[in-house]
Amino acid sequence: MANDKKLVEAITSMDVDFAKWYTDICKKADLIDYSSVKGCMIIRPYGYAIWELIQKNLDGRFKELGHENVYMPMFIPESLLQKEKDHVAGFAPEVAWVTHGGSEKLTERMCVRPTSETLFCEHYANIIRSYRDLPKLYNQWCSVVRWEKTTRPFLRSREFLWQEGHTMHATADEAIAETVQMLNVYADFHEKDLAIPVVKGAKTPSDKFAGAEDTYAIEALMHDGKALQAATSHYFGNGFAKAFDITYTDKENKLVHPFQTSWGCTTRMIGGIIMTHGDDNGLVLPPAVAPIQVVIIPVAMHKEGVIDAAKGLADRLKGNFRVKLDDSDNSPGWKYAEYEMKGVPVRIEIGPRDIEANQCVIVTRHDREKTVISLDNLEAAVAEKLQAVRDGLYAKALANRERRTYNCETMDEIIAKRAENGDGFVRAMWCGDPECEDKVKEVTGVGSRCVPLEQEAISDKCVCCGKPAKQLVYWGIAY
Amino acid sequence: MANDKKLVEAITSMDVDFAKWYTDICKKADLIDYSSVKGCMIIRPYGYAIWELIQKNLDGRFKELGHENVYMPMFIPESLLQKEKDHVAGFAPEVAWVTHGGSEKLTERMCVRPTSETLFCEHYANIIRSYRDLPKLYNQWCSVVRWEKTTRPFLRSREFLWQEGHTMHATADEAIAETVQMLNVYADFHEKDLAIPVVKGAKTPSDKFAGAEDTYAIEALMHDGKALQAATSHYFGNGFAKAFDITYTDKENKLVHPFQTSWGCTTRMIGGIIMTHGDDNGLVLPPAVAPIQVVIIPVAMHKEGVIDAAKGLADRLKGNFRVKLDDSDNSPGWKYAEYEMKGVPVRIEIGPRDIEANQCVIVTRHDREKTVISLDNLEAAVAEKLQAVRDGLYAKALANRERRTYNCETMDEIIAKRAENGDGFVRAMWCGDPECEDKVKEVTGVGSRCVPLEQEAISDKCVCCGKPAKQLVYWGIAY
Repeated sequence: MANDKKLVEAITSMDVDFAKWYTDICKKADLIDYSSVKGCMIIRPYGYAIWELIQKNLDGRFKELGHENVYMPMFIPESLLQKEKDHVAGFAPEVAWVTHGGSEKLTERMCVRPTSETLFCEHYANIIRSYRDLPKLYNQWCSVVRWEKTTRPFLRSREFLWQEGHTMHATADEAIAETVQMLNVYADFHEKDLAIPVVKGAKTPSDKFAGAEDTYAIEALMHDGKALQAATSHYFGNGFAKAFDITYTDKENKLVHPFQTSWGCTTRMIGGIIMTHGDDNGLVLPPAVAPIQVVIIPVAMHKEGVIDAAKGLADRLKGNFRVKLDDSDNSPGWKYAEYEMKGVPVRIEIGPRDIEANQCVIVTRHDREKTVISLDNLEAAVAEKLQAVRDGLYAKALANRERRTYNCETMDEIIAKRAENGDGFVRAMWCGDPECEDKVKEVTGVGSRCVPLEQEAISDKCVCCGKPAKQLVYWGIAY
Repeated sequence: MANDKKLVEAITSMDVDFAKWYTDICKKADLIDYSSVKGCMIIRPYGYAIWELIQKNLDGRFKELGHENVYMPMFIPESLLQKEKDHVAGFAPEVAWVTHGGSEKLTERMCVRPTSETLFCEHYANIIRSYRDLPKLYNQWCSVVRWEKTTRPFLRSREFLWQEGHTMHATADEAIAETVQMLNVYADFHEKDLAIPVVKGAKTPSDKFAGAEDTYAIEALMHDGKALQAATSHYFGNGFAKAFDITYTDKENKLVHPFQTSWGCTTRMIGGIIMTHGDDNGLVLPPAVAPIQVVIIPVAMHKEGVIDAAKGLADRLKGNFRVKLDDSDNSPGWKYAEYEMKGVPVRIEIGPRDIEANQCVIVTRHDREKTVISLDNLEAAVAEKLQAVRDGLYAKALANRERRTYNCETMDEIIAKRAENGDGFVRAMWCGDPECEDKVKEVTGVGSRCVPLEQEAISDKCVCCGKPAKQLVYWGIAY
C-alpha cells in the first residue's frame, strides 16, 4: 500500500501548476525520460507504443489516398538549403550543423534536416519529366532537428519524430485540393480517433511556413485554455519548383513547372492528447491509440479460481482488443492507481463474488463510472464502453473549448473576457492589416491562431482599428 | 516497343561486371536514387516498400519474444561516447560531428549516433534498480551514420536504416541466451522469408564489435562468391554496465552489475537479396518481402471482356496476396520486362483465348516457367507458385553456396581452389593465433568470416602454421 501513496503524492494537481502537472505525467506514466542530450527526449516503450498506433493509423489513411513512403538523407548541404530564399531564412537560424566527418573537416557543412522540402525538390527535379509522372505523392516518417532554446517533452524538443508529405501536381488546383484533403485527414484523425475537437483554418501571412504560399493548420484548445497547432498542410504554388528547376512536359508538349504541397504532424500530438484529456489521476488515452485498451485486475487473487477466471476474460478479449492482465503481486489499489496514471480507457475487476454471479465490474477511466455486467455480454460491453470513453472524452473536450471560446468586438472586450474566464479562443474580426495583428497581441496578449475555413461575420469592424473587417480570426496563446 | 529495348539494354550482365550489374538494378528497379548528399542514398517507394515488409516481419518476431520499441536521441555528446574505451576507439574515427546549433557554437560537440549502446546504457543506469526491473528488452528502429570513405547503395552508405536491440539481464547466462536467440531469429528470417541460406557463427577476436566480449553473425554467400555479413548479435558481459555504473539489487540484496547484449540488422539486407537472387533480367524478390507478389497483365487488352476478366482476377486475389493489375497503355512485352526488372515473383497473363478456356497463364520469375491453370483453382495455384518461388530461390542460392564452398588443408590449396573455381567460402582449420589469421589473408586473399557454431574437424592442423588446430573457420572476401 506504500506504493499507492507514493504514486498519488507524485502528481502535481493541474489546477495548482499545469506545466508541472504536464511534465509529471510525461514522467510518471513512463512516456519519456531525459538524457544528457540537452533538449532531446527518450521516448520510452509506453510512449513509443502510442506513437506506433498513431503512425499505423495515419499511414493507412495516407496509403489509402495513394501516397507512397520514401526515405531521404538526414543531411542537407548548405548550398541546397539556400536554394529557396524564404525557406533558408526561416530555418537557417535553428538548424544543427555537421562540420566534420571523422577527423576530417567537410568542404561544405551540412545541416541535419529541419524539414525536407529541399531534398524532395532535388529528387523531383531528377524524376519528373512528363505529365505522366504526375502527381507524385510521397511521404516520409523520420526524425527532424530544430535547435530550440526552450524545450518541453513532446511539445517542443530539439529532435522530434514526424511524418512529412511532399507532393507534386500538374495544376495549382490539384495541389490546393491535396493541401485541403490532407488538412481534412488530420482533422478527421484528431476528432474521431484522438477525440480532440479542432478548428480548421489558414495561417495569417505573417505565420506561414517559410516558402509557402498558404499554410493551413488544425488548432486544438488544451484543458488550460491555451491553443495547440496540431498539424499543418502547406500549398507552395510553383515557387520551389522554379528555384529547383523542376519542369515537366505537359499534354500540349510545353515545358512547365509543377505545383507543390507539404504536410506534417509530429510527436507533439501526444502532448495534445495529454493536455486535452488528462486529469489529476494521470493520463487519459483515447481508445484508438491506447497501447492497453483494457486492463484486467483480479481481486482477492489468492482465492481459488480468480486468476483462472481473469485469464479466461483476457483470452476472450484479446482477439478484438489490446488487453493486459495484471496478475502481479501488487495490491488491487496499487494497480488501479497505476493504470489510471497510464490512462488505460477501460478497467475490468473480477473477484470471487463476481465469478459466482457470472459477472465482472467495468470502470471507464475518464469518468470512473462503474458498471456491473454479465459475462455473457463481455465482448459487446467492452466495445460499448470503449466507444463511451471516446465519446465522453470528445464531449468533455468540446465543452471545455465552448466554455473557453469568446466572441469579442473590441480589444477591451478581449481583455475583460480573458480576465474573467481565463485563456481560450478569442473569436474576433480582422481587417487583414499585419499591424493590427501585432497590436492585438501587444495590447491583449493573444496572437492570431488561424483564419477558420468556416467563416462567420460576428461584426463588420476590425477588432483593432475599427475599419471594415475582412475575416473572422481565432486568437489565442499558443503552445 | 522502343521501351522494351531500352529496358533490356540498360542492364549490364552480371557475368560481365557484377558491381555494375548491382548498381544498375538498384537504379533500374527504382530502388534508390542519388542526391547531392555524398555517400547517402534516397530510398525510393519500391525500395522502401521492401524495407517496410522487412520491418513488419522482424518487428513482429521481436515483439513476440517480449521486446519493446523505444526512441533515443540521434545525438551523442562526445563525453558520453568516450565512457567505454574500446567502443570510442572503434567508432570515433567514423562519426559525423555536430559543432553548431543555429549560429551558436556548442560547448560540447556531439556525434550523430553510429550505434546507440552509450545512450541505452545511460538510460538503463536511470531506470534499473532491482532484479524486478530485469530483463530490459528494448529495440529501436532508426537511422545511423558512419562516415565511410567508399560507399555503395544498401551495402555501405554513410547513413543507413536499421534496428538495434539493446537488452539487460540479471545473469551472464541469460544474456548469452538472448544473444544466441536473436542470432537464430535473424537466421530463421533469412532462410525462411528471404530464402537466403546463412552460416551462423562467431567473429574472431580481431573482428568483434567495439566493446563486445563476443560477436555473432550470420554470413551469406552472394552470387559472385563474396560473403555478406547479414546481421550481428553481440554479448557485452558487464563491461559497459561497469563503465556506465549500471547496478541493481539482486535477490540477496547485493548491488551487482547486469549483463548486456545488442543486435542489429540494416537496409544492407536489401543488397543481400539483390546479390543472392537477382539475374540479368533484374531483381528477383522472395515473396515474403515483395511489395507486389502477383502482377496481372491483360493480353489483347482492347478485346471485349479482357480488362474485366483481369480485374476479376485481381479482386479474387487481393484479399490474400499483394496484387497489382497493370492495365496501362504499355505493351504486354514492355510490362513483362518491367515487372521482371522489379522482381515480382508471380506474373499472371490473361487474354481472350484464356477467358474462353476458363484459364490463365502463370509465370514464375526465378525460372520463367509458364503454367496454364484453370481459373477454378486460381487462389491455390498462386499460393503454390509463390511457395515454389521461395523454395526455388533457396535451392538455387544453396546450390551456389555449395558449389563455391571449398574445404582446404593448406594455404596452397586455398589459392589453387580459388584460382580454379572463383570466390567462395573457404572452410579451413585455425589454431586461434591472430598472426595466422592475418597471414592467411595476406597470402591467400581471404579473411576470416566466422567460426561456425556447427563445428567439424576437417583436419587437425592449422591451415597456416600447421600447429594443432582449435576451430573450423569460414574464410572469404567480404562485402
